[in-house]
Amino acid sequence: MERRVNARPRLIVIGGDAAGMSAASQARRLRDSAELEILALERGPHTSYSACGIPYLVGKTVSSPEALISRDPATFRRDFEIDVRTGTEVEGIDLDRRTVTARPAGGRAVEESFDQLMIATGAVPVRPGLPGMDAPGVFGVQTLSDGIAVREFVDSRRPRTAVVVGGGYIGLEMAEAFVQRGMEVRLIEAATEPMTTLDPDMGRLVRDALTGMGVRVHLSEPVTGVETAPGGGAVRAVATEEASYPADIVVLGLGVRPGSDLARAAGIEIGPTGGIAVDARMRTSAEGVWAAGDCVQSLHRVSHAPVSIALGTHANKQGRVAGTNIGGGYARFGGVLGTAISKVCDLEVARTGLNEAEARRAGFEFETATLESTTRAGYFPGAAAMTLKMLAERRSRRLLGAQIVGWENAGKRIDVLATALWNSMSVEDVAAMDLGYAPPFSPVWDPVLITARKLAEQM
Amino acid sequence: MERRVNARPRLIVIGGDAAGMSAASQARRLRDSAELEILALERGPHTSYSACGIPYLVGKTVSSPEALISRDPATFRRDFEIDVRTGTEVEGIDLDRRTVTARPAGGRAVEESFDQLMIATGAVPVRPGLPGMDAPGVFGVQTLSDGIAVREFVDSRRPRTAVVVGGGYIGLEMAEAFVQRGMEVRLIEAATEPMTTLDPDMGRLVRDALTGMGVRVHLSEPVTGVETAPGGGAVRAVATEEASYPADIVVLGLGVRPGSDLARAAGIEIGPTGGIAVDARMRTSAEGVWAAGDCVQSLHRVSHAPVSIALGTHANKQGRVAGTNIGGGYARFGGVLGTAISKVCDLEVARTGLNEAEARRAGFEFETATLESTTRAGYFPGAAAMTLKMLAERRSRRLLGAQIVGWENAGKRIDVLATALWNSMSVEDVAAMDLGYAPPFSPVWDPVLITARKLAEQM
Repeated sequence: MERRVNARPRLIVIGGDAAGMSAASQARRLRDSAELEILALERGPHTSYSACGIPYLVGKTVSSPEALISRDPATFRRDFEIDVRTGTEVEGIDLDRRTVTARPAGGRAVEESFDQLMIATGAVPVRPGLPGMDAPGVFGVQTLSDGIAVREFVDSRRPRTAVVVGGGYIGLEMAEAFVQRGMEVRLIEAATEPMTTLDPDMGRLVRDALTGMGVRVHLSEPVTGVETAPGGGAVRAVATEEASYPADIVVLGLGVRPGSDLARAAGIEIGPTGGIAVDARMRTSAEGVWAAGDCVQSLHRVSHAPVSIALGTHANKQGRVAGTNIGGGYARFGGVLGTAISKVCDLEVARTGLNEAEARRAGFEFETATLESTTRAGYFPGAAAMTLKMLAERRSRRLLGAQIVGWENAGKRIDVLATALWNSMSVEDVAAMDLGYAPPFSPVWDPVLITARKLAEQM
Repeated sequence: MERRVNARPRLIVIGGDAAGMSAASQARRLRDSAELEILALERGPHTSYSACGIPYLVGKTVSSPEALISRDPATFRRDFEIDVRTGTEVEGIDLDRRTVTARPAGGRAVEESFDQLMIATGAVPVRPGLPGMDAPGVFGVQTLSDGIAVREFVDSRRPRTAVVVGGGYIGLEMAEAFVQRGMEVRLIEAATEPMTTLDPDMGRLVRDALTGMGVRVHLSEPVTGVETAPGGGAVRAVATEEASYPADIVVLGLGVRPGSDLARAAGIEIGPTGGIAVDARMRTSAEGVWAAGDCVQSLHRVSHAPVSIALGTHANKQGRVAGTNIGGGYARFGGVLGTAISKVCDLEVARTGLNEAEARRAGFEFETATLESTTRAGYFPGAAAMTLKMLAERRSRRLLGAQIVGWENAGKRIDVLATALWNSMSVEDVAAMDLGYAPPFSPVWDPVLITARKLAEQM
């Protein structure tokens, strides 16, 4: 195997999406190409794209895949002097020799040496080992290539019935996309309600809204397999213990796990979540080796437990922190709150901090309050329903988490509660805050304030 | 003059809107009518209405005045056992005798004795002493009665041309209302840009948007008088040093001052803003006398200076604090940030904390950063422009204030910055926060995060 040796210090980045390319470009901002060579190796054909935009590509809310790409390889080469090699799979990391083994698609493996290594290998979609899961017409929606494949399938095959397996964010957004494409859509979820990142009472509201949009929701039904046309043909139906549901297309939205196998094989420390263990500067257990994005574990600021949350925002921030440190600067990642927001047709769903199950697991004694309110003054046209739930610790009255389900303009209010959580505010203090009020924007007592007050009074 | 004496302890509330009735109803929640008699005296015909809704009543976004009333006198009598007397003007407070002099419209003054007194006398609109200001067709929009009068004038007289004097929130909202009613609208402002609560560079954006909506904006033009039809007739035009502008209707939105005259005459301490001096429990300088709402001064949490900001949110919160304390409970008002939000047609305008002039006045050394971004991911349909400006203190890097001008969904982001200010966050810390992201809601780096980062990097 050929071995290349380099004169300048060299950073190798494994993974060319959010975390990897944020790190690479930030390192470049601090060190020019005379000081630092940067090589980025990406398995797929794309760099720096919005994975969160994939459902909208499928639903044709977004017209072309190019719209989701924030910087392509040519841009990185031209504007950042970063040598990006797409279609190149890294097969191994040798920490002693400080090399990685990289194989271009259909080509010969090459050993590339590094001075610093940035691991940004992302997440691996969960695919249950059930019959038919690899049949034509069964898709994951992890990468932009997956999204393009789903869209092309829908465009060319014109499926009439769709089954989405898994009722999380991706599942819901894909259900919406298929509704927009005129399909008959079923959502199958093993849990008692969709959106298990919410408490069941809030998930119930999501279920009702989905049903209202014409999506058939099947709950407490673990999928047992995919039925295909005879002779290894295309998908025909999705089977559960209850029934068999016809499906011309199936999308799996069963969550992801950290893509830490490469790091693990190299002897880099992996944490209890299965994510690569990193400190706040995004250093791994190996000298000069950094990691960021969906493949790492992060500190949850409320539970203080390690968590692995696959989300573009963390990937971007962590990548930037790593890049700053790699470039000789100083930056720390502040941890996560588990903030997430999603939209299914016009329903907005958001959460931050801990839900009831998470708070119990973290050992908190807590109380909850739920408020049904409106997004604008009650008398103002367009005032839409929103339900807000908050959790607070019993003794300290500290806010622990919040969940929102509601219509237009409800969701982004979660940021106020994320900011409150970031600052460990008590619910009394949240209730006292000076938030913006005008009739088109909220009732005079913003739902955030009333729910916090209700919770404070209750304790 | 007749004097009534009471057996039970008696609370008299002067002013039946947000602050007064919040205090009265909260006191009632803690003390039933056997323990505390409550008498509320209101000069006008209405109680507890949304003054902020008046422009929408005039613009017919809201159909009837009743929609703006949250609780009418009958409701307070029935559900809260509060004796509400509308049309009753309080002419004086005697602290030694512990009485107020109350005169029902067209009736005889009566002396009413109190054990505790709650002053919620609101704000007084600024009316310049210029010729013609009292002419028919010239309106303030302070009370619900004002709003009803403007609407009736528009309905019956069908004015063709409207002039709004003063480019603050009320002025802008009234300009929108008149545009909606099909009038030719001019906005006349003495300052160099509208919305002087924003910095001029942000006010400029508001001006451009107003012009785009067809409103003719005249800046740096102090009004010199109102021209009327001969013989003390109706308004015909508004005159400035530059020109005379035809007007079938004129609305004055020149701001307000605290309505503290009654308290001052009674010897209660008035602060440097002209508002009644109160502590965090809403106690005035006089034993057993409380005050809340537009008539008081509050502590600004960033400048630490006293301010008088007439806003329904503060009035409601302060009233509730006073009511809790009056009822024997314990509550403190946490101060204000000067958060405000408004909408002119589809333009959203919001601010919190200190603007440049206020920060300079408070003695801060600061830097600013301004970002032009979008309300959703750039590729997502409906992504609209928003401009976000932040100020931070030079040494501490502490956030001092923020301003937003933008389209749909831009404005309420101010609450995140208000929450950050409430917690004295540094811009580095703001930039690190875990805010909600999905393509329909924001770019992957929320504008709030990027602006904070930009400001942090700049210092």
